[in-house]
Amino acid sequence: MLEQIPNREPMLEEIVNEAKRFTSIGKPASYIPALSLQSVNQFATCLIDEHGNYFETGDTDTIFTLQSISKVINFMVACEYHGLQFVLDKVDLEPTGDPFNSIVRLESSKPGKPFNPMINAGAITVASMLPGETAEDRVTYVVDFLNRITGSRHQVNKAVYHSEMETSYRNRAIAYYLKENNYLLCDVEQSLETYICLCALEVSTKDLAKIGLMLAGNGVYSLTNEKFITRRTAKVTKALMTTCGLYNASGKYAASIGIPMKSGVSGGILCTVPYGKVEHLEGKLGIGVFSPAIDEIGNSVAGMKFIESLSKKYDLSIF
Amino acid sequence: MLEQIPNREPMLEEIVNEAKRFTSIGKPASYIPALSLQSVNQFATCLIDEHGNYFETGDTDTIFTLQSISKVINFMVACEYHGLQFVLDKVDLEPTGDPFNSIVRLESSKPGKPFNPMINAGAITVASMLPGETAEDRVTYVVDFLNRITGSRHQVNKAVYHSEMETSYRNRAIAYYLKENNYLLCDVEQSLETYICLCALEVSTKDLAKIGLMLAGNGVYSLTNEKFITRRTAKVTKALMTTCGLYNASGKYAASIGIPMKSGVSGGILCTVPYGKVEHLEGKLGIGVFSPAIDEIGNSVAGMKFIESLSKKYDLSIF
Amino acid sequence: MLEQIPNREPMLEEIVNEAKRFTSIGKPASYIPALSLQSVNQFATCLIDEHGNYFETGDTDTIFTLQSISKVINFMVACEYHGLQFVLDKVDLEPTGDPFNSIVRLESSKPGKPFNPMINAGAITVASMLPGETAEDRVTYVVDFLNRITGSRHQVNKAVYHSEMETSYRNRAIAYYLKENNYLLCDVEQSLETYICLCALEVSTKDLAKIGLMLAGNGVYSLTNEKFITRRTAKVTKALMTTCGLYNASGKYAASIGIPMKSGVSGGILCTVPYGKVEHLEGKLGIGVFSPAIDEIGNSVAGMKFIESLSKKYDLSIF
Amino acid sequence: MLEQIPNREPMLEEIVNEAKRFTSIGKPASYIPALSLQSVNQFATCLIDEHGNYFETGDTDTIFTLQSISKVINFMVACEYHGLQFVLDKVDLEPTGDPFNSIVRLESSKPGKPFNPMINAGAITVASMLPGETAEDRVTYVVDFLNRITGSRHQVNKAVYHSEMETSYRNRAIAYYLKENNYLLCDVEQSLETYICLCALEVSTKDLAKIGLMLAGNGVYSLTNEKFITRRTAKVTKALMTTCGLYNASGKYAASIGIPMKSGVSGGILCTVPYGKVEHLEGKLGIGVFSPAIDEIGNSVAGMKFIESLSKKYDLSIF
Repeated sequence: MLEQIPNREPMLEEIVNEAKRFTSIGKPASYIPALSLQSVNQFATCLIDEHGNYFETGDTDTIFTLQSISKVINFMVACEYHGLQFVLDKVDLEPTGDPFNSIVRLESSKPGKPFNPMINAGAITVASMLPGETAEDRVTYVVDFLNRITGSRHQVNKAVYHSEMETSYRNRAIAYYLKENNYLLCDVEQSLETYICLCALEVSTKDLAKIGLMLAGNGVYSLTNEKFITRRTAKVTKALMTTCGLYNASGKYAASIGIPMKSGVSGGILCTVPYGKVEHLEGKLGIGVFSPAIDEIGNSVAGMKFIESLSKKYDLSIF
Repeated sequence: MLEQIPNREPMLEEIVNEAKRFTSIGKPASYIPALSLQSVNQFATCLIDEHGNYFETGDTDTIFTLQSISKVINFMVACEYHGLQFVLDKVDLEPTGDPFNSIVRLESSKPGKPFNPMINAGAITVASMLPGETAEDRVTYVVDFLNRITGSRHQVNKAVYHSEMETSYRNRAIAYYLKENNYLLCDVEQSLETYICLCALEVSTKDLAKIGLMLAGNGVYSLTNEKFITRRTAKVTKALMTTCGLYNASGKYAASIGIPMKSGVSGGILCTVPYGKVEHLEGKLGIGVFSPAIDEIGNSVAGMKFIESLSKKYDLSIF
Repeated sequence: MLEQIPNREPMLEEIVNEAKRFTSIGKPASYIPALSLQSVNQFATCLIDEHGNYFETGDTDTIFTLQSISKVINFMVACEYHGLQFVLDKVDLEPTGDPFNSIVRLESSKPGKPFNPMINAGAITVASMLPGETAEDRVTYVVDFLNRITGSRHQVNKAVYHSEMETSYRNRAIAYYLKENNYLLCDVEQSLETYICLCALEVSTKDLAKIGLMLAGNGVYSLTNEKFITRRTAKVTKALMTTCGLYNASGKYAASIGIPMKSGVSGGILCTVPYGKVEHLEGKLGIGVFSPAIDEIGNSVAGMKFIESLSKKYDLSIF
Repeated sequence: MLEQIPNREPMLEEIVNEAKRFTSIGKPASYIPALSLQSVNQFATCLIDEHGNYFETGDTDTIFTLQSISKVINFMVACEYHGLQFVLDKVDLEPTGDPFNSIVRLESSKPGKPFNPMINAGAITVASMLPGETAEDRVTYVVDFLNRITGSRHQVNKAVYHSEMETSYRNRAIAYYLKENNYLLCDVEQSLETYICLCALEVSTKDLAKIGLMLAGNGVYSLTNEKFITRRTAKVTKALMTTCGLYNASGKYAASIGIPMKSGVSGGILCTVPYGKVEHLEGKLGIGVFSPAIDEIGNSVAGMKFIESLSKKYDLSIF
């Protein structure tokens, strides 16, 4: 159903080549041992339009873990299952300007409600809301949701999962703090297991592009007309990606790029464009990017460079 | 050139009437004596489309002061005059989740750079960048810019200006803190005088609608084709309005409304819609709203209610 | 060896009676279920001088749990075992003005070093330093130390211990945060088990008075001339009690009372007076007080009232 | 009346000589231009006992400005004039663990009450309480108080005063913040002028020693039996010096030194010892020290070294 556009567009190639020069600036996430070993000079991107045309370049066979990109998927699942209001009773939607793993603001904003679902605190709360009796059930539910969108069979990277579970002292600190303040719907270990397991889910750039296309269609995947989430959930999710999707650089990138995005410390980026014309592609666009070297804030350096150039050259900002 | 659409559209009227029921929830800003005396049951709105059709209702002759809406105008002027990069060297674009008059984050984010131009700290920094040798020069420069867009002759409300100058201890505290950290381009008194004077500039809802229309046109005012700001400044401004325009409820409203907006504690709201169809109006839209009773966060209660219903009924979210 | 002074001194009786009138102001600690059930109108005090004369009044048979008073005992043990410098590498001695269970300051004071051993964070760090391979070993070591001073056989109140272990989400959050930043010398569970177990150790007011007398003797228990800790550890401990012993009211009480003290949320207070003359008692004094209703900060209301009157009437301030 | 002890005591000389080796560690306060120019290898100290014997060494003719040492003098004057309770209604007595010029805690501790009179915020509040209609009156009142104790005629160092007035942006920020929250009893400029003028008051080490002796006498200056302040004010002042006198190293030095002290960024230190025996001196002691190179926290490096050795060698800790 997807039709690959031959890689001949010089402008697009130029943008790719320029971005590739940034792959060695930044470093792979060091705090997750299994991620720190990745080769930094990887770069892959995939763009899909609503007609099924796509363009891909680089190490497109590479799979990588979702990391924080899972936060946006879990949020959609929680909203669909419980309704938006239920979710918002437990987590706000305000950007913070804080690093993703900050604890400070939990304490200062009485009574400890997480600021938004894109910081770790909010994401752990959302993980605790996912449908299922056990962490395994919850993970399976989200994997099924993802499999149906992408047509892939997503797997948990066990090495990454174990690596994160062992070193997640700060996330445990956050989770216990949430538990004390009644912002977890299940116990601490189950919440963390669910959260970390879904962070370790493997995807390709094409998978990300497909999720982006579904969001661009406000919940409807254009190529099959299948509806995965409500229009309302899609809109709220895209707003959240815009205000909070790129850690404490979200505001800067909203101004300079203007595309709803969510990044992960694995170096992946999920983008959704409501309407764009990029060479032979046109209409709703989903974009996936991957390059593992990240900056101090947590965003892929070459990946952000690519999206920034793409948005400027093809005028993709929603603003 | 503007053509008024007769007020017959029942759905639009219904939205107006529903919003009006909220005029007495909230209170006029109490910390500015001259504002606290306003009658709360005022409500006015004006929508203009790119063809010059407009719709207005309520106390549309009422003029009110810009207050924080001036922050967005000053930001545009500073960017046009100095270039975006110059401005960003002195102020970031990150939302904070803090109240507009918070000092805490200035100190915690070394070396004291204001988070964004929509909180008081950032706005005072931007005021210090405006072109002119004196506060009067700076104010005149911005008033001229505004007069050209709206065709009105905007005046400073002296009573409000003096009232704010006298009680602006906290803003003075912020300004001295900025001065110490080299984030003011002129002296403290001049920065404050400029900032507070522009907060006290009087506008009508129609004026706000016109500014919104100019922003919807990415700097070009559709009715005259005159270009007031660059496309880039317009895009950055709208991104900033989306992430930071409604104080520490910006994220919530980005999700539920999805329109770039800026509110002021006077009860005014400036909105810009890139494309919408609202009864007989179609295309780019500028919207101005006014209702003086504000909530604890600083946004007009009835005003936000109006925009929220409008966005939902006519599907105006940019996401 | 101890000789009880008959309760006839009218001034002392008056102070006791006055303090007793405050027993019902405040409430027993509500966050530990086993403590919240205590009868509030209990009051007991015991004063011992260096000659073995003592005075006691009220419910002197009552035993209660140490709670935060254990922090000061653990600190002495850790200093004696490791030397002061080793302890200070892991925990500072600065008062904070924050509530005892605050997390905020851990994050803001890079790199996460606890401010002092009297807040929970520092106390958990100190608990992780206690000698022993297991939590049980560590507890036994401290209990032996305490038994030797008081001549009692201190027991852990299992109900209180279990009650605290089950509801210690916030302490777990703190402990995981410390672990991440390398301020725990053993694992999180062992640190918490040790810490909470020692909080649940039972004592009487006479036991507290004896510990106070040992501290007044700079480590030497006057009645036996046995030396329990070094002069240096005793001096540092008393300084710490003065600056940090009464939660975020330590500064206020240093000014108004001027006695090194440590309180616990159980309502106990340990005091040590280098030289005083209280009726028939004279010289070094140890004082224990107990009354379970505490104020919002965590100090026994009637207990503090008693010490305050005592210090004023008998001029006990060290300043 | 004072009788100088010949400088022959070898141990005291040794302590002096050892301390002098630290004069070039640290730097003179850089943020006050007039202070930054001082020669760093100055060192002076003076000890006076209650019998009028004294010992002095080094550059004892040198005069230097009080800087933060004035905070403790102003506090005594305010307490004597208004009574302690009046003062405590406007400023707490809690140590903070924050740098002296921090703003953060003002905002976080609602409703903005300064933590203690030794941080700038609290000191500016106290300055606003001093008796007098004008800043000049207030300064004169305090200078008279000081002159009576020391028998000197203290002068304001105009160069230092002007230097501080010009660069006091942060203090102005603090003062405006206090004004907004009703913690100033006069206007901002008058408070600052008073505060900064008294910081610029010149003293010698002998002057500081005399003030220390008066505090050691609980308000009574032993050599004349004149009473300058109440016993209660003296006790509270010494408690405050102990918990907050050395900026955010107060807790550490309470433990290692155990003497009520107050330092200033000029490099001066005022110490008061209730009872000590230092060579031929005995009884109540007042000590003044001066050495201009300060550490990052604000305390004289060589000065603290001297006091620390002195306290250890002669066992001067009050604990």
